[in-house]
Amino acid sequence: MTEITADVIVAVVSIFTAGITMAIGSIAPALGEGRALAEALQAIAQQPDEAPTLTRTLFVGIAMVESTGIYCLVVSMILIFANPFWDHFITKAGG
Amino acid sequence: MTEITADVIVAVVSIFTAGITMAIGSIAPALGEGRALAEALQAIAQQPDEAPTLTRTLFVGIAMVESTGIYCLVVSMILIFANPFWDHFITKAGG
Amino acid sequence: MTEITADVIVAVVSIFTAGITMAIGSIAPALGEGRALAEALQAIAQQPDEAPTLTRTLFVGIAMVESTGIYCLVVSMILIFANPFWDHFITKAGG
Amino acid sequence: MTEITADVIVAVVSIFTAGITMAIGSIAPALGEGRALAEALQAIAQQPDEAPTLTRTLFVGIAMVESTGIYCLVVSMILIFANPFWDHFITKAGG
Amino acid sequence: MTEITADVIVAVVSIFTAGITMAIGSIAPALGEGRALAEALQAIAQQPDEAPTLTRTLFVGIAMVESTGIYCLVVSMILIFANPFWDHFITKAGG
Amino acid sequence: MTEITADVIVAVVSIFTAGITMAIGSIAPALGEGRALAEALQAIAQQPDEAPTLTRTLFVGIAMVESTGIYCLVVSMILIFANPFWDHFITKAGG
Amino acid sequence: MTEITADVIVAVVSIFTAGITMAIGSIAPALGEGRALAEALQAIAQQPDEAPTLTRTLFVGIAMVESTGIYCLVVSMILIFANPFWDHFITKAGG
Amino acid sequence: MTEITADVIVAVVSIFTAGITMAIGSIAPALGEGRALAEALQAIAQQPDEAPTLTRTLFVGIAMVESTGIYCLVVSMILIFANPFWDHFITKAGG
Amino acid sequence: MTEITADVIVAVVSIFTAGITMAIGSIAPALGEGRALAEALQAIAQQPDEAPTLTRTLFVGIAMVESTGIYCLVVSMILIFANPFWDHFITKAGG
Amino acid sequence: MTEITADVIVAVVSIFTAGITMAIGSIAPALGEGRALAEALQAIAQQPDEAPTLTRTLFVGIAMVESTGIYCLVVSMILIFANPFWDHFITKAGG
Amino acid sequence: MTEITADVIVAVVSIFTAGITMAIGSIAPALGEGRALAEALQAIAQQPDEAPTLTRTLFVGIAMVESTGIYCLVVSMILIFANPFWDHFITKAGG
Amino acid sequence: MTEITADVIVAVVSIFTAGITMAIGSIAPALGEGRALAEALQAIAQQPDEAPTLTRTLFVGIAMVESTGIYCLVVSMILIFANPFWDHFITKAGG
Amino acid sequence: MTEITADVIVAVVSIFTAGITMAIGSIAPALGEGRALAEALQAIAQQPDEAPTLTRTLFVGIAMVESTGIYCLVVSMILIFANPFWDHFITKAGG
Amino acid sequence: MTEITADVIVAVVSIFTAGITMAIGSIAPALGEGRALAEALQAIAQQPDEAPTLTRTLFVGIAMVESTGIYCLVVSMILIFANPFWDHFITKAGG
Repeated sequence: MTEITADVIVAVVSIFTAGITMAIGSIAPALGEGRALAEALQAIAQQPDEAPTLTRTLFVGIAMVESTGIYCLVVSMILIFANPFWDHFITKAGG
Repeated sequence: MTEITADVIVAVVSIFTAGITMAIGSIAPALGEGRALAEALQAIAQQPDEAPTLTRTLFVGIAMVESTGIYCLVVSMILIFANPFWDHFITKAGG
Repeated sequence: MTEITADVIVAVVSIFTAGITMAIGSIAPALGEGRALAEALQAIAQQPDEAPTLTRTLFVGIAMVESTGIYCLVVSMILIFANPFWDHFITKAGG
Repeated sequence: MTEITADVIVAVVSIFTAGITMAIGSIAPALGEGRALAEALQAIAQQPDEAPTLTRTLFVGIAMVESTGIYCLVVSMILIFANPFWDHFITKAGG
Repeated sequence: MTEITADVIVAVVSIFTAGITMAIGSIAPALGEGRALAEALQAIAQQPDEAPTLTRTLFVGIAMVESTGIYCLVVSMILIFANPFWDHFITKAGG
Repeated sequence: MTEITADVIVAVVSIFTAGITMAIGSIAPALGEGRALAEALQAIAQQPDEAPTLTRTLFVGIAMVESTGIYCLVVSMILIFANPFWDHFITKAGG
Repeated sequence: MTEITADVIVAVVSIFTAGITMAIGSIAPALGEGRALAEALQAIAQQPDEAPTLTRTLFVGIAMVESTGIYCLVVSMILIFANPFWDHFITKAGG
Repeated sequence: MTEITADVIVAVVSIFTAGITMAIGSIAPALGEGRALAEALQAIAQQPDEAPTLTRTLFVGIAMVESTGIYCLVVSMILIFANPFWDHFITKAGG
Repeated sequence: MTEITADVIVAVVSIFTAGITMAIGSIAPALGEGRALAEALQAIAQQPDEAPTLTRTLFVGIAMVESTGIYCLVVSMILIFANPFWDHFITKAGG
Repeated sequence: MTEITADVIVAVVSIFTAGITMAIGSIAPALGEGRALAEALQAIAQQPDEAPTLTRTLFVGIAMVESTGIYCLVVSMILIFANPFWDHFITKAGG
Repeated sequence: MTEITADVIVAVVSIFTAGITMAIGSIAPALGEGRALAEALQAIAQQPDEAPTLTRTLFVGIAMVESTGIYCLVVSMILIFANPFWDHFITKAGG
Repeated sequence: MTEITADVIVAVVSIFTAGITMAIGSIAPALGEGRALAEALQAIAQQPDEAPTLTRTLFVGIAMVESTGIYCLVVSMILIFANPFWDHFITKAGG
Repeated sequence: MTEITADVIVAVVSIFTAGITMAIGSIAPALGEGRALAEALQAIAQQPDEAPTLTRTLFVGIAMVESTGIYCLVVSMILIFANPFWDHFITKAGG
Repeated sequence: MTEITADVIVAVVSIFTAGITMAIGSIAPALGEGRALAEALQAIAQQPDEAPTLTRTLFVGIAMVESTGIYCLVVSMILIFANPFWDHFITKAGG
């Protein structure tokens, strides 16, 4: 059992957390954006003259909704490529 | 088993909690903002003349909804980069 | 196993609880605010003349809904930065 | 294993329960208030002349809905800062 | 392991049950009251002349809905401050 | 481990069951009553002249719905204050 | 471990089952009755002249819906106060 | 551990299964009957002249829906009072 | 531990499975029949002249829906009173 | 522990699987048939002249929906009365 | 424990998987077919002249929906009667 | 325990995964196809003249929806009859 | 236990993950495509003249929705037939 | 147990996380896109003249919704083919 060193545990938890964070974090933005997009299409069909305003508002809004998905991607990437806990144990092991 | 020291446990729990906090915390804001955005588009199609008022209220409102997502991001970042418990054990281990 | 001292356990539970409290506590306020915001936009589109009254009621109301999210943030921050149980064990360990 | 004394267990359970009580207890009030707020805005748009009556009923009602969230906050604070079980074990340990 | 005496177990279960009882018990009353409040506002907007009758019925009704939340608070407080099982074990331990 | 006597186990299970019974038992009555209350308000707004009949039916009906919540409270109180199993073991232990 | 005799196990399972049976058994009757009550109020508002017929049908119907809740209460009370398995083990232990 | 004889295990499983069968078995009939009752009231309000036909169909129908709940009660009572497995082990133990 | 013979295990699993099969098997028929009954009442109120046809179709249809519940009851009764696996082990034990 | 022979395990798994297969397999057909029946009644009320066509289509359709429930019953009966794995082990044990 | 040979494990897993595959696989086809059947009846009531076209499309469509249920039955039957893994172990054991 | 060789584990996991993949994979296609079929019938009733176009689009569309179910069947069949991992271990064991 | 070598574990996890990835990954595309198909049929019935445009948009759109299902199939196939981790361990074992 | 080295654990967790990330990550985009596509078809049927604008907005919007699915695919591919933790342990093992 001596193989289960600190860095293995940290690596495993980082991998799993990174994946699951991105997976769960993709649910709500996609649903929210899908809904907004659906309503936008309905609105354009209702008021074709306002299509530019509607499209602009839609894309700015989707970017704002996307932001929570981006936060999850950021946390996920930090855990894979810039993980301070991992750096600590690698440094300690190599020291 | 002597490898499972205090700092490993704290690191692992911090990583997992940071990820899951951000992941769960992204669900509701994205859904809420998506819904508001959808209604905004419908409202603009219904009252094109009020587009500026609607858009302004929408973006201020989305910022307020986003705030709970930001709280989660803040807690998540504190747990990764400014974790007082981690600092305590690192200091103790290094002392 | 002698490494699993009292302060490690308290730290780990505090970290996990702080994160999960904030995460769960962000769900309902964001959904509730998103719904209110959506209805506000619909209402403004319906009664543009009442926009100031509606916007004011909306923002006061959102602040009241936000309060339960704030309670969670408060509990979360207390558990990270002003945890009486943690202080007790740190003091005892240092005494 | 001699480190897992009674006060550690009580502290850990108190921390976890305080957090989870506040977290779960914030769900329903925020959803209920959000719904009431949404209907209030719709009602004001429908009957602008009744705005004062509606707003007053809304805020008194929200305060009543908030009460169950407050109960949770009270239980949560009692468990962190005025926990009779914790006091018992601290006193016993110090006696 | 000799530290895990009867009073620790009873204390831990009482703390956890008190919290979770209050937390779960706050869900339904808040949702139910929020729904009633929302309908009340809609009804007032529809029949402004009946506002006093509606408001009175609303507040009496909310008090009745609140009662199940109060039962939970009562059980929660009994478990924390007037727990007969806890008293039994404290008395036995002190006897 | 000799401390885990019969009365501890019975006490722990009674506490937990009492809490969870009350908690779960408060969900449905509160939701059902909230729904009935909401419809009552809508009905009063629709037929103000029938307010006395509606209010009377509402309160009698809520009392009937409340009955299942009361059953849970009764079971919960029996388990805390008039538990025949607990009495059996206390008597046996004291005999 | 010699304390975990047959009667302790039977008592514990009876307590837990009695509580959970009553708790789960209260959900559906309360929801069903709440729904029927809500429709009754709506029906009275629609046909005030039929109020006596509607109220009578409502109360007979609620009594029939309540019957499944009563079955649960009966099973719950049998398990606490007239449990044949418990009687068997008590008799055997006392024989 | 020699106390965990066959009859204890059979008794415990019978108690738990009897309770949970009745509890789960009460959910659907109560919901179904509540729904039918609600529609009956609405139908009576719509066609007061057909009240006798509607009420008769309602009560016969509820009795048919109730049958699945009765099956659960029957299984539950068989498990408590006429359990062939229990009889087998009691007979064997007494033989 | 020598008491946990084959027949005990088979008896325990048969009891539990019989109960849970009946419990789960009662959910859908009751919901489906309740829904059909509700629609039947609505249909009778809409077309009183067709009441005999509707009632006949309803009762034949409910009997068909009930059939899946009956299958579950049959499986449940087979497991309690005509269980081939139980017979096998009883015969073997008695042989 | 020498009593847990191969046939006991196979018997136990067969019993449990037979029950749960029938239980889960009864959910969807009953719901689907209930829905179809409800619509049929509504359709008959709407077009009384088409009652024979509707009833015939209904009963043929219900028979097709019932087929998936029948598949489950078949699998369940195979597992109880014509289980090839059971036959294998019985033959082997008797050989 | 020497009795838990390879064929027992494979038999147990095959039995359980066969049952659960058929059980879960019956849910969606039955729901989908029930829905289609319900709409067909509504459509026939709306356009009695198109009954042959509707009925033909319905039955062809139901056969296509049924196909996913058939796939599950096929997998289930393969696992019980033509299981290559089982054949392998039986052959090996008999070789 | 020496019987739990590599091929047993791979066989067991392959069986279970094959079944559960097909079972879960049958849910969504059947629901989606059922919904499309229902709408098709409604559409034909609304526009009988377009029946050929609607039926053709329906069947092509169902084939596309079915494709995800087919992917699951393919994966399931690969795991049972063309499993590269199983081949590897069989070859190794026979080598 | 020496049989549980690295390649067995990797094979087992790869098999299970491949199956479950395809199974879960088939849910949403099938539901989404079913919904789109349903709306397409409704739209064609509403605007028969636009059938070519609608059908073309439908099939291009379904292909885009299908893409997420394809990603899952790709990941699933990679895990079965082009798994870099499996190759690594096979190479190592054979080296 | 000496076979469970660090690289096996990292490989297993990477495989499982990669699969589950892609599987969960495919749910929301497919649902969101399916909804948007459905609304687009409805909108085209309502406003055939705006088909080009609607189709363009639809496809740009679907690409934005797809982005969260792509993030999941990216994380999944990184975990399989460019996993920094895996590289670390392979390098260390080979060093």
